[in-house]
Amino acid sequence: MKTKIVQFGLGPIGVDCVKLAATKPWAEIVGGVDIDPDKAGKSLTEVAGVPDLDACRIYSDVNELLSEVRPDVVLHTAGSRAAESFAQLTPLLKQGVRVVSSCEELLFPALRAPQETEATDALCREAGAAVLGTGVNPGFVLDVLPICLTGVARSVASIYGERVVNASTRRMPLQRKVGSGMEPDQFRALFREGKAGHAGFQESLALIAHALGWTLGPITETCEPVIADHDIQTDYFKVAKGLTCGLHQIVEAEGEGHAIKLDLKMYLDAQDPHDAVHIEGEPSIKLRIDKGVAGDGATVAAVINAVPRILKAPAGVRLMSELALPCWA
Amino acid sequence: MKTKIVQFGLGPIGVDCVKLAATKPWAEIVGGVDIDPDKAGKSLTEVAGVPDLDACRIYSDVNELLSEVRPDVVLHTAGSRAAESFAQLTPLLKQGVRVVSSCEELLFPALRAPQETEATDALCREAGAAVLGTGVNPGFVLDVLPICLTGVARSVASIYGERVVNASTRRMPLQRKVGSGMEPDQFRALFREGKAGHAGFQESLALIAHALGWTLGPITETCEPVIADHDIQTDYFKVAKGLTCGLHQIVEAEGEGHAIKLDLKMYLDAQDPHDAVHIEGEPSIKLRIDKGVAGDGATVAAVINAVPRILKAPAGVRLMSELALPCWA
Repeated sequence: MKTKIVQFGLGPIGVDCVKLAATKPWAEIVGGVDIDPDKAGKSLTEVAGVPDLDACRIYSDVNELLSEVRPDVVLHTAGSRAAESFAQLTPLLKQGVRVVSSCEELLFPALRAPQETEATDALCREAGAAVLGTGVNPGFVLDVLPICLTGVARSVASIYGERVVNASTRRMPLQRKVGSGMEPDQFRALFREGKAGHAGFQESLALIAHALGWTLGPITETCEPVIADHDIQTDYFKVAKGLTCGLHQIVEAEGEGHAIKLDLKMYLDAQDPHDAVHIEGEPSIKLRIDKGVAGDGATVAAVINAVPRILKAPAGVRLMSELALPCWA
Repeated sequence: MKTKIVQFGLGPIGVDCVKLAATKPWAEIVGGVDIDPDKAGKSLTEVAGVPDLDACRIYSDVNELLSEVRPDVVLHTAGSRAAESFAQLTPLLKQGVRVVSSCEELLFPALRAPQETEATDALCREAGAAVLGTGVNPGFVLDVLPICLTGVARSVASIYGERVVNASTRRMPLQRKVGSGMEPDQFRALFREGKAGHAGFQESLALIAHALGWTLGPITETCEPVIADHDIQTDYFKVAKGLTCGLHQIVEAEGEGHAIKLDLKMYLDAQDPHDAVHIEGEPSIKLRIDKGVAGDGATVAAVINAVPRILKAPAGVRLMSELALPCWA
């Protein structure tokens, strides 16, 4: 029996999820959800450009979808906030549907939405449903990968993760998200208001601490603009020297003799993009991925690859640290 | 409630397991097993040198142990062969005990002991028992880590893993195992007889193929001596130029457009020791761990860290690819 899949959210990531899922022999795409009136009512073939999905309708409302289609798994790519995502997903979870989401805060939803997480966990257990947040960052390079490395450690004192992304090679929304072309003070103000910066970064740290059973002090998070030291021209932006060409975001926390620090730079014309993880412990481990794991395409892969694993997981709000080892599916 | 642990096998790795387990607040060591008459009858404090284990007796026989002690988990470090290990463990598994083993072939026991694996899996399911093979190599750097990386891959064409170990920095048994001081032809003959070489290497490849659902052709395995190009003196061996100072072992298999190749060099005075994994696919990922993950101490860590995960796993012969994400415990 194929796994019946519904795609919830048909922005660029959601469309790509449909495309990748359509290549999987174990998957059968059965519908979509999007509130955008330009998409609702159309077919997935029309909106995602995937052949043979003309019969897969996009619904504007989850309840309407549920009255006509019974998915096994919903792929959710419609938000970054845990509480909002839980609210969107509740009707599905009540029906025992399993969900894999790219929502950044769902990587560790108890951090910013503890009550909603508890309530959703309870209703999942009652209904046999499960929900998981995953991706590449958050979801892999600065959380899952460091946790995995500690599996061969006798002791762990501290964990440091570093990611440098050359935003020039990435799609337009990412170049905008990192502040390309902004006055530096404007970017700083936006970050303070929660309107700029990389989402889910504290969640990466919180997931590591949770997996290791570490009780740490408060997480501090800073985000500074990277200032262009020369005029930069990308396919989408022109950034004059002295303006913002990206971000440098750091989260850290420590306590009980342990420390975690994650350092993210995403900026235009970044040199030597890479991912790195340093475990200080016994043994210490220094891992490096040259060029890094590129974001969007791999995030879609992480979501699709998690489907067989969320189907086997116990009911509840699940974490990447609890699921089976990540694997291509 | 603490997890009651018995150590089966009290060679150097087993003794180190007792030492590390004794540091864990969640573990209570309750006994040992070893057929060596110099150890059986003594206490774990006497044999492993760990304080406060005077009451923990070492039994020469598993059934004798079971008549006096009821462990939750047995740590098994008493062999490299799957069929022999299953036979040793059967009385324990029949009682519903869970086992984590450093036995190399147990990483993927169906490769060389398919019937024993099937029979053991059946009796585990009946008794609520579970058994897992793990370690660093096999068990992590050239199997679990590559599988984990494919979790963010849209497609995977091939997987290449490489490990270079400077045997000069390792304990005596490893220096002996890699053939230090042997005539090269003598080493080759021993490998052909199955008496030399790194155990469990084919299992690493088989686990990757199994996790990815790849059906590959037969695994080919070669092992050549590394010839000393200068006189080498370690703490344990003196190797003249021209004699064997280590091994270079390769396993590979391909089929259906996929390929896996693993390349292991362990030799005295090896330069630039490291672990590396290359995933060719979308995206391609090149990972490197400078100096590599040192073997013995980390293998013991892998065994201990797997205890909480094997306790939560479904009954049966389990694989690292099925268990929750590795994590320090």
